[in-house]
This record gives sequence, C-alpha cells and structure tokens, in this order.
Amino acid sequence: MSDNQRILIVGGVAGGASCAARARRLSETAEIVMFDRGPYVSFANCGLPYYVGNVIQKEENLLVATPELFRQRFNIEVRLRSEIVSIDRFDRTIQVKDLERGTTYAERYDVLVLSPGARPIRPPLAGIDLPGIFSVRSIPDSRQIRAWIEQYQAKQAVVVGGGYIGMEITENLHRRDLKVSLVEKQPQVMTLLDAEMAAPIHTTLVKHGVELYLNDSVTRFDTGEGHRLVVSLQSGRSIETDLVILCIGVRPDTSLAKAAGLPIDPSGGISVDDHMRTVDPHIWAVGDAVSVKDVVSGRTGVVPLAGPANRQGRIAADTIMGRDRAFRGVQGASVVGILDHVAAFTGLNEKTLRSLELWDQMEKIYLHPGHHASYYPGAEPITLKLIFTRNEGRVVGAQAVGQHGVEKRIDVIAMAIQKNATVFDLEEAELCYAPQFGSAKDPVNMAGMIAANFLRGDARLAHWEDLEGSDALILDVRDATEYNRDHVDSAVHMPLDEVRQRMHELPKDREIWTYCYVGQRSYYASRALSQHGYHVKNISGGFKTFLLHEAAKFL
Amino acid sequence: MSDNQRILIVGGVAGGASCAARARRLSETAEIVMFDRGPYVSFANCGLPYYVGNVIQKEENLLVATPELFRQRFNIEVRLRSEIVSIDRFDRTIQVKDLERGTTYAERYDVLVLSPGARPIRPPLAGIDLPGIFSVRSIPDSRQIRAWIEQYQAKQAVVVGGGYIGMEITENLHRRDLKVSLVEKQPQVMTLLDAEMAAPIHTTLVKHGVELYLNDSVTRFDTGEGHRLVVSLQSGRSIETDLVILCIGVRPDTSLAKAAGLPIDPSGGISVDDHMRTVDPHIWAVGDAVSVKDVVSGRTGVVPLAGPANRQGRIAADTIMGRDRAFRGVQGASVVGILDHVAAFTGLNEKTLRSLELWDQMEKIYLHPGHHASYYPGAEPITLKLIFTRNEGRVVGAQAVGQHGVEKRIDVIAMAIQKNATVFDLEEAELCYAPQFGSAKDPVNMAGMIAANFLRGDARLAHWEDLEGSDALILDVRDATEYNRDHVDSAVHMPLDEVRQRMHELPKDREIWTYCYVGQRSYYASRALSQHGYHVKNISGGFKTFLLHEAAKFL
Repeated sequence: MSDNQRILIVGGVAGGASCAARARRLSETAEIVMFDRGPYVSFANCGLPYYVGNVIQKEENLLVATPELFRQRFNIEVRLRSEIVSIDRFDRTIQVKDLERGTTYAERYDVLVLSPGARPIRPPLAGIDLPGIFSVRSIPDSRQIRAWIEQYQAKQAVVVGGGYIGMEITENLHRRDLKVSLVEKQPQVMTLLDAEMAAPIHTTLVKHGVELYLNDSVTRFDTGEGHRLVVSLQSGRSIETDLVILCIGVRPDTSLAKAAGLPIDPSGGISVDDHMRTVDPHIWAVGDAVSVKDVVSGRTGVVPLAGPANRQGRIAADTIMGRDRAFRGVQGASVVGILDHVAAFTGLNEKTLRSLELWDQMEKIYLHPGHHASYYPGAEPITLKLIFTRNEGRVVGAQAVGQHGVEKRIDVIAMAIQKNATVFDLEEAELCYAPQFGSAKDPVNMAGMIAANFLRGDARLAHWEDLEGSDALILDVRDATEYNRDHVDSAVHMPLDEVRQRMHELPKDREIWTYCYVGQRSYYASRALSQHGYHVKNISGGFKTFLLHEAAKFL
Repeated sequence: MSDNQRILIVGGVAGGASCAARARRLSETAEIVMFDRGPYVSFANCGLPYYVGNVIQKEENLLVATPELFRQRFNIEVRLRSEIVSIDRFDRTIQVKDLERGTTYAERYDVLVLSPGARPIRPPLAGIDLPGIFSVRSIPDSRQIRAWIEQYQAKQAVVVGGGYIGMEITENLHRRDLKVSLVEKQPQVMTLLDAEMAAPIHTTLVKHGVELYLNDSVTRFDTGEGHRLVVSLQSGRSIETDLVILCIGVRPDTSLAKAAGLPIDPSGGISVDDHMRTVDPHIWAVGDAVSVKDVVSGRTGVVPLAGPANRQGRIAADTIMGRDRAFRGVQGASVVGILDHVAAFTGLNEKTLRSLELWDQMEKIYLHPGHHASYYPGAEPITLKLIFTRNEGRVVGAQAVGQHGVEKRIDVIAMAIQKNATVFDLEEAELCYAPQFGSAKDPVNMAGMIAANFLRGDARLAHWEDLEGSDALILDVRDATEYNRDHVDSAVHMPLDEVRQRMHELPKDREIWTYCYVGQRSYYASRALSQHGYHVKNISGGFKTFLLHEAAKFL
C-alpha cells in the first residue's frame, strides 16, 4: 500500500473507531475518513442499559470520543448522519448519503473498512411500530426510553428477550421501580448458559418481583388506555404495560456488503479471513457485522462483543498497513450482572457441543465453592460448570453463576483455554489467596482437582440427567438433618461418617451412585467404597445440582 | 509401597492435613497418624489477623477440621500437643514427646511426612520476651492479643515488619481503633513489590493515620508505665505503646530434619525433589518448611504460602502411593488487602531480576487503567507493572496496586505465566466485559498492547529512573491545566492536540522523551513525531509513575 492511501471507514463505534485510531498511529500520511449514519461516534454501546437505569446519569458520559477529538488528536475526519448507500468495487468508490441534507455524493477509497455493526431484530408483528415500543441500540433509543418513563411516570414494562441486554434492561428498569414482565421464547433466560445453570437467575428474577413468561412469545401489540400498550402472547395471556423494550437480539448489518457482492458467511455475517479482509483485497470488515471463527470449535459464527470488535479493528489497521497480523478468533467470554447475581462464561456450553455432535468426547463437572474462604464472613457460593475433553482433559468451556468473584474465575479459565490448558493445569494453578479474596484451594483449583480425579480414574462420575433409566442404588451420604429436610426420592441414607462401619449393608453387585450437598463428601464416600470393592460413581455437584436440574425441568 | 503401610505426618496444618486426607482417599488400608505440637490441626492460619481484628468473631470459625472429624471421616488418628523430638532414619522410628504428660515414646513408620511449617522470627533483642510482645502464628497467639487489647483497653500498637502479616495486622488493629506505628527495616513495606509500586500503600497507610517508621528497626524493648512498653529504634526515636506485634517474617522449621541429617537447601528450607521427597526415600516434606523451585527463575527458595502447601501435600500423598506426580514449582502469586487498597503480584519483580543479573534481558511497562469502564460510575485506577523478556515477550512478572479488581488481573496473568504466555497473548486475551466488571480493552489487554507495541518497534520506551544522566528533551503533552499544576522540572510543554501543528519547534537531532499523565497521549504523540523523523521515546506510565518513583525516592 502506498503511504498516502485513502482509508474510508463505515461505522464509527467499537471496531471502526479502533481501526481508525490505530491506522493513524501507524501512518501519519494516510487520509482517514470515518462515516456513521448516527449522530455520534465511538459511544459506549454497552453502557446504554445503565443510562436507562440512571446509573450513568449524563448522556455525555457515554461519549468515549467526539468528532472534534478525532480531528484534533488523530487527524481523522468524521462525518456523522452519513449513510453509505452503495459500494462500487470496480471504481473503488462509495455513495454517501448526507442524512441531514438528503444529498448523495461519491467518495473514492484505496481501502474500505466496513464496521456497520448489527441491527436490533424487530419481528414483523402487528403493532410493532406503536409508540412505546423501543429497542436499546443507540443513545437516541435510550434517551427516548428515559423520556417515556418520565413523561408517563411508567410503573410497568414488558421486556421481550432474556439475553444480555434483556437482563441488563430488566435490572435497570427494576432499579427505577418499574415492575418488569420478561417474555422469552426459550424455556430459559441467558441461552448462552446451559438450562440448569440459568436456574439461579430465574430464582433471583422472581425474588425481585420480575414476572417470567418463559416458553412464550409475543403475537401482537395493541394500544391500551392512554399511552399504554397491550402485549398478547402465544400462550393466550396478555399483559397491559406502560412500555415495551425489544431485546430479541441483533442481526449483522450486511446489506451494504451483500449489495456489493461480498460473500456472506452461512452464519450470517460478512465473510472475512483472519486478517479481517473480505474477498475484495481493498475491503476489510470488522465488529458485529462479520462472522468469525470460534477458537474452540473452529466453526464460524456471529459474536457481537465489544472486546473482539476492538481487537479486530486494530488487526484490520495493522494488515491495511502491510503487517502480518491475524485475528485468533473468539472464545465468547462474557459476563452479565442480573440484580444480585452475576453470570459469566467462556468457551463452549453443553448444548452447543451436543448440537455439534461433540458431546461424546466431553465430560463435565459441577461444583459450588465459596467465592472466598468459608471461615471469612460473607462467603457466597459460585455454581461452576466445567467442560473438558475426556481423553486429555483439555478445557473446552466454563459457566459460572453467583454473587461475587464470578467473572474472575471465568477470566482465569478464559486465559487457560486461550493457552490450550488442561484440567491438570487448573489443578496446579497458583492464584492469589487471602481469605477475603479466595481460598487456598481456589474454585479454579477445585474444578481442576475434581476433573483431574475423574481423568486419573480416581472418581467415576454420574450425572443427574442419567438418573432415570439407571438401576443404580442412590446413596445420600449427608447427615440426617439434611436428608430429612429433602432428598432424592429413591435415595438410601448413610451419612459419610458411618460409611466405613456400615458399608456391609450395601450391595457389591449393583452400581452405587453417591451424592451429598455439593459433591465433596460423596466423593470421600465413593473413594472409601470403591477401595472396598464396591462399584461406585459420584453424582457431580450433589443435591444442589439436582435442584438446578429440577428447576430447569419444571419450567 | 505395601498397601498397609504406616504413614506418620508431622504437622497438621495446610500441607500435612492435605497430605493426610489425600493419602486416605488413595488408600483405605494405610495407617495414618498425624502429630501436631499445638492444640489444633487444620486451622485457618491466614485468618488469624482477621480474628485479631474481630472480623472473624469466633475462634471455632478458624478450625477447618477437628481431630474428631479426621477420625470419623478419614480414619486418621490425630495426636495434638505431640512434639517429634527426633527421627531415627535407620530404624524408621520417631520419638514423640507428649507435651501434656511430659513423656516420650517411639513410633515406627514406613513413610514419614514432615510438615512442621515455619516459626516466626524473634530477633535476640533486649526485652523481646516482655509481656505485651506478640507474634501471630497460632490461635493461642491471636487469643492472647485479643485478651491484651481488651484487658488494657489498648489504644496504641507497634507493628514490627511491613510484610503480608504486618499489613494485615495493621489493618485489623486500625479496624479496632488502635493507633498503629509500623516499623520496617527496609525503605518500603511489602518488599515483594518493587519500591515505586509500594508508594500507593505508604500513602494509604499515612492517610489512615498509621505512623510509618521506614528504614528503621527496633534496638530494644523496655517496660513502660503499667502494662505499657517502650520501643527503642535504631534512629534514636522511641515509641511508647500498649502492645507490640512482631511480624518480621518466618523461618522454615528445619530443626528436626537437620538433626536427622536430611539436607537443607541453601535457601533455608528442607531439600526435596519435585515429588516432595527428601533424600531419604521414606521421608517426604511439604509446606512452609521446604525449599521449592520458582517456575520463572528456576531458583529454589522458601515460599510460605497456603496454596502451594496444599498442593504439595496432595502431590506427596500421590507419590507415597506410587503415583508419578511432580510439583511444578511456585510462582509466588499472592494478594494482600491493606485498608482501602489491594496489592497483588505473581512471578518475579524487578529487584529480584536485577539481583539475579537477568534484568538486561527484561523490559517493563507501567499503566494505570480503570478497574472497569471509565464511563460507568466508580472506576478506580489500578497501577500495573508488567515485566517481560525483551526478545520474545514472555511474561515474567506482574504487580498491581489499586482498590478493586486488582487480584483478578494478577490471577489472569498468573495463568498466563503458568502456560508460558507472551505479551502478545495478553494483547489478544478475550476476557469478560460488561461496564461494571471491566473494559472492552481490559487492563490485561492494555498491558499486552503496550508491551507488544514495544516489541514490534512501534513504541520505544524510556523510564523515569533514566532521566538523570539523559540529555533527552522532555516533552509534556498534557493540557495546560495539568502542566501548570505540576510537571517535571526540565519539561517542555506541547499539548498532544497541537503536536502536529507545532512539531517544527522540536529538534530532530536530539532524543525526545514524551510523557503525559499515564502514558497514552504521549504514546500518540510519540507515534506522530517518530513518523515525521523525530527520535522519540515514550516514558512508560507517565507523570503518575513519575510521582510513584519520587515518593519511593524520598523516603
């Protein structure tokens, strides 16, 4: 590339803005122009729900950088309210529509970077365009929601969709004292989590007064009294409300690329190579609009996350400037705060692995360690699910739900996955410990130890979903108080501390599945029994995991 | 080893207790007896300062496991108040002194595991045994401190030694409204941190009313009025106080091993191989009493940390049972809470690398990112120092000080070091992001990006300690308000946003060192200047790092 090339960037949020700034740092001579159809560049997309909730009180706090800053600091020209209507790849020009004036003009490029992002999905339902129905994708969207809530002193809201944004909007509307009804088509919220791992989130939503409409979807919207709306559901139920927020998800904005004949990946985003370049050697694409490789499965998909978008923008700039840098792909590491809970995940979950027909190569474990030392006041459990390969123990995915220290453990596991670590590495990880921060055996270590015990053959594993159809004897090794309070229907009771004396009561010719509350005491029991010739498996994650499965089942 | 071997374990806290429990899980038939000279086994050593501070209110909360639990649950016999006075390696017997009865008896072993821990250092100073002078190594120690504080309504305390325990005790005495005077021989507390990284801790200590006596040491203790004590210092100063707590450090308890002729490592601990076995094939040793390999430097040292002790205990049990498992060594990952600050570290620090004469192979960077997105309210800076090899960018060590999210970043970097990661891996790490938890470019990513920029030749680095003796032109690119408030003496001022227009004012034949407040704007300036033919270095970590160095210098 020549040193005074002309770089045009379509879309000025995470990926586009990162690309523009990096390109300038690598070349003082390139001409860089960034277009955005909206009224802002480089704004904090991920902060919008918290602006709705008035946690972020001022709109200007959402503006990471202004056009003036881009001009002064980076010598980058920003044109707002400018929509790119077409690309002429042969002539290397784009047609730009000035949305203020309604005029259209051409701009020539040496390099074109597409960072158009994604658009909120708006299903073609009757009444979808009624006033009071919002998305949360831009600052104006959020401003309108705030204004509507204030104008009508809104008390009730319907949130459609229980993904990240649905959860964050629910939390923030709850914070503003609105009663929220949450409608989700799937039987669970946060579908990135496996069903049983979403159960604690359902519990906290209900505890905070959120009405859950799972396994249900909107069929139409109608006007109600005054400003109000009536939301009709598939189930026949209907909800009267002050406003509706659509959080159904987003769809890569590929219209411009498609019209220009650029290939679209079957997963829905613009196809790019690992330099973020499209098939056209003059056109790059980054961010929510592209399909990227999942580093664990090797499959392409659309992963609308800010971190990868920023890194893609940098890598695009590097390769535009002739450097050989490759995007390594995505792991899907993410976190969401939901009222008093936090859920985080990285890698692949069980349902994805099952759908990819890879599950027979995998094993999983559950554990419920405290977020810090149990002897230090205030320890709260983290429910952690770790998935790894059965042959060599390579870490494939992890999900965690709890109140504190949740994303810390997932971050450590994310780095482990990035570096191809095994569960034996997690077992031997040396992490920071003081009693208010962790445990001498950190939850990450515990997960590694449990998985390593399985791989070394020290602990055979059973899972609750295999209970039906099994003729194993189910052995509850908790103490009498715990057992009497609640237990699995068919379970025989023998407290751990009596197992050595009473094991003769148990059959040697029948498989025994042990459980306790979280899986540790039953592991001890399984070790003692198996050494005395019993055929034992330990049910991973104990009764606490049973309750999660039951909660997921009965929705 | 035979299946009904007799395993005797000397010392029943972290390493010993872990070894005993793991050994039982691997063998139902071994006879396992655990001895401890104290009145408890398996207590929460790391909780003692918080018991002194009444955060942990009940002594029983510190007891992780009781002798009854060991007997019932693990079929392990525990003998308390039992001191091992000698080992006869030829006969494979130990002499056990019953400290209650004063009698001594012999016990035969097939396997002996030494986990005697470490003893607090008590220098032979005049008055060291006066009432009111305490260590914090056991539950009785802590109980006595609590009783003394209550009995004398103590208002003042002298803490001798500013390491982990010194910091934690200082915090906890402050919590109980005692005025603390902290005496530390070195010019800084927390000597695991490099001097400049300890500066924020000094600031918070002083802010909370702690009197710092750095570069000073105790010469004698004398009785004062009533129960009070007078502490005389090397500097000639003296402090009257209600009590003294010695936190000078610990020394591996190797007396028994030494008397038995087992080799002691030059670093002070019992010599063991990576199976935690001493030269005697029947004797293992674990925990604070042994010397272990540092995974980064390859050198042996004594690292009294609970996490490694637990893992060593497990590995000893595994190898005792004939398995081939090796301890990978220690990284020194640790964290300490100090009033409103947290300090965490992993790997090697600069001063250790300098003393090992490895520094010329290393580079370092400083950064001060927010602990979460800046646009979300409440972001607090983390001061992060990353050390990596100059040739390939392998991560060698990291130190962080801040208020929130500090140990999370160090944990991620600890996993990176464990897996031999480079700064390019940190740059491309995919970590959990939502605005209340982190940033799209997490501090770990930022550290990786800055270091990668150096390694790719995009940013030449200068450091404040090289300012003297350099004839570079120092260029402050902050805005006028910042510059006028305070700046480096010799600095020329040119705000970043004017650099492109005014760079002709700068010399092309003299090296220019740019700085701003944290190092980002000056990096932008350095990129623009260097592309226009100027010889530029960016001073890592900016004016904020300058202030840390100054604070460290003037102590």
